[in-house]
Amino acid sequence: MALQDALDALSALLGERLSRSKPDLEAHGRSESHFAMTPPDAVAWPETTREVQEIVRLCARHGVPVVGWGAGTSLEGHALAARGGVSVDFTRMNRVLDVRPEDMDVTVQPGLTRRALEEELRATGLFFPVDPGADASIGGMAATRASGTTTVRYGSMRDNVLALEVVLADGRVIRTGSRARKSAAGYDLTALMLGSEGTLGLITELTLRLHGRPEAVAAGVAAFPGIGGAVDCVIETIQMGLPMARIEFVDAASAAAFNAYAGTDLPERPHLLVELHGSETAVAEQAELFGALVAEHGGDAFEWSTREEERRHLWRMRHNGYYAIMAAHPGARALVTDICVPISRLAEAVEQTQADIAASGMPGPILGHVGDGNFHATLIVRPDHAGDLDTAKGLAHRMAERALRLGGTVTGEHGVGMGKTGYMAEEHGEGWAVMGAIKAALDPQGILNPGKLVPGN
Amino acid sequence: MALQDALDALSALLGERLSRSKPDLEAHGRSESHFAMTPPDAVAWPETTREVQEIVRLCARHGVPVVGWGAGTSLEGHALAARGGVSVDFTRMNRVLDVRPEDMDVTVQPGLTRRALEEELRATGLFFPVDPGADASIGGMAATRASGTTTVRYGSMRDNVLALEVVLADGRVIRTGSRARKSAAGYDLTALMLGSEGTLGLITELTLRLHGRPEAVAAGVAAFPGIGGAVDCVIETIQMGLPMARIEFVDAASAAAFNAYAGTDLPERPHLLVELHGSETAVAEQAELFGALVAEHGGDAFEWSTREEERRHLWRMRHNGYYAIMAAHPGARALVTDICVPISRLAEAVEQTQADIAASGMPGPILGHVGDGNFHATLIVRPDHAGDLDTAKGLAHRMAERALRLGGTVTGEHGVGMGKTGYMAEEHGEGWAVMGAIKAALDPQGILNPGKLVPGN
Repeated sequence: MALQDALDALSALLGERLSRSKPDLEAHGRSESHFAMTPPDAVAWPETTREVQEIVRLCARHGVPVVGWGAGTSLEGHALAARGGVSVDFTRMNRVLDVRPEDMDVTVQPGLTRRALEEELRATGLFFPVDPGADASIGGMAATRASGTTTVRYGSMRDNVLALEVVLADGRVIRTGSRARKSAAGYDLTALMLGSEGTLGLITELTLRLHGRPEAVAAGVAAFPGIGGAVDCVIETIQMGLPMARIEFVDAASAAAFNAYAGTDLPERPHLLVELHGSETAVAEQAELFGALVAEHGGDAFEWSTREEERRHLWRMRHNGYYAIMAAHPGARALVTDICVPISRLAEAVEQTQADIAASGMPGPILGHVGDGNFHATLIVRPDHAGDLDTAKGLAHRMAERALRLGGTVTGEHGVGMGKTGYMAEEHGEGWAVMGAIKAALDPQGILNPGKLVPGN
Repeated sequence: MALQDALDALSALLGERLSRSKPDLEAHGRSESHFAMTPPDAVAWPETTREVQEIVRLCARHGVPVVGWGAGTSLEGHALAARGGVSVDFTRMNRVLDVRPEDMDVTVQPGLTRRALEEELRATGLFFPVDPGADASIGGMAATRASGTTTVRYGSMRDNVLALEVVLADGRVIRTGSRARKSAAGYDLTALMLGSEGTLGLITELTLRLHGRPEAVAAGVAAFPGIGGAVDCVIETIQMGLPMARIEFVDAASAAAFNAYAGTDLPERPHLLVELHGSETAVAEQAELFGALVAEHGGDAFEWSTREEERRHLWRMRHNGYYAIMAAHPGARALVTDICVPISRLAEAVEQTQADIAASGMPGPILGHVGDGNFHATLIVRPDHAGDLDTAKGLAHRMAERALRLGGTVTGEHGVGMGKTGYMAEEHGEGWAVMGAIKAALDPQGILNPGKLVPGN
């Protein structure tokens, strides 16, 4: 049997670093959100690019699926082995290989998590800006083209990955990009791999762009009487060209969840959480301008601080937003939505979504990277209520359709995974067939993360 | 005969907008730099996406090459019909289709030039930042992943194109991306098309990201005693995180050419030309900091101004740099090099290049977008000196090898075209074969800009 032959060969290669134990398979078959347990047939823990190459070659020979695994924090089931096969867990490839402060770049292995990287960079005066809520792996963030709260200023993974090493479906290893800041030398294979969700190759090394820590950082919060004022304030801020480093929306229900989880005392109303980066003078000037915009849009006094402790507290609260919301609903699972629209359509997108959620009776706090036009509703699915998942899927479906109607995308940053494939044809039209043609050219056997992202896969 | 059949059908479709006249063919067979006359078999001037689609379908049916033509300003012969066929000239598709100030984006046709776009945007308070020296077409800039003097702050075409409409090799039309500021919905086909140089499709519509005009703009010049001090000053400026909107290097020979062409009186020494964008306060603060860095690196007093007339004069001088250099050598052609290296290797790259040029005895002024690590030598090839082209090619070859040795790229922004295909294998290794596989999947007949960019094409 092909699978058994492949696993025997992998065992010979990896020894105890290949597992078929039930706990290991289940740990790699579980998702952070609502997807059903989908265990792989085996879990492999490679330690080198060479081993990844060997794993892929062996699986290719036997036609066995290969699915990358980073930190398991995906919300769309990307790393679940939809057609079985081998889960390639990168947690043992988690080193920082080279920090080059003079070039403001760093080369890392894919299993490193973003918080571990932050820790490694602490002494350099540099930072890596992309910050999804979870402590995701850098490889997973690249594979899903992740973004976060600072994307409005520093860009997403698309903008902050300079070069990759990738193992292809036939075991060849390629290097895409270089450490030069730009290049016009042929097809942008780095960009093609970012967001390909493990369907075109397994990322085994990444060179990331770093940024200098700003001289001064100010962070603050403003409460608004309603959602419209908050969103309009964001739109005007962006249009004025105020260089916000972060500008996040939190609705009343999310504020309540934060209070319960983090012991804060936010009024239970819509908020904007913002951060400004620059010189002392620039930051103070921008904070004053932003405060004026808040007042114009009916918000409370904008309170801000440059004290590090207060800032850390604020952003820890925001990054734990998903966990805070889940903690308010013990035992529940979540369906987390993720639409992104042109900023001029943001207010209507949020308002229509909120009205639809309210009408459903389902809890669905809204959080968003509103400077990018991107927001999430965390729809709460109770374990013992059979109708909840369908209700949540209906709400999510209407959000996705709304995003497309407003000229946006069904996923701003969470990716396609198991959850969004059904929208690809509508979002991309013939472009989806082009994705399929590229997939077929680079992985004709279809062994890389099958069942995801491309047509008929 | 297949070609004649295709041209008959195209004539029936386009009437007088298909030409086989010698002047038209020669106008589309000429390059701005040193490449030999390479006329197409016919020139077509479509007016709609539908017509582009019909042209491509007819050419596909008869196996006739199709090569896009924008403003003819390429320095690498991208738009030359290396295997004959039809030159598709986009000058009649040059409209601004929709400006949306509230979303800070604009949708344009590919034949629009960057200066025409600048003119159209003048009243909006917004601008499109990507500014190669020439008045290139936006479609050509996208196809070559162009950048310019503001890339250090605002990014290249890679960062400023949100969405495309593309006619594929079989005549299908796809739309890539959307007006949402980010998306994680599948392969990044927009990024794949940017820099594909007409080998994967013809771009028929583009949605571009715009930026708010800064409240204040300061521009200035500093002269340095030597090249090392100037380059080190750039490196430290970038590392300090000073948000330069432009930071350009001009060597002594270029300064002399500017003086002769534009009537300026720059000392004939290396210079940095810089621009700062921000609030009045921020710009003044940054200019002061930059001035201190200039002094530290042995430069003269940094003179700057926020007066629009002075700034315009400065940047017109810089953008005309290529023409100024050529004007100093009447009748000559140029081979313009274009390497980009990690910033820590920039000083040695420039110094070694300058020494090599000096040893050759050939004029080769150096200009560079040094904030990105990218610079150009304009090598002067006299028409009546048989050895000049070989000398220039030797210098260019050593620059390309130097770039790769220093971890960079053989083309920062000019693209591959006819001139750089020979370096693709060395720069990309197996990645070049991957580019070939993508090309074969999307254009199996090889009718789109054949003879360029990919292996065996």
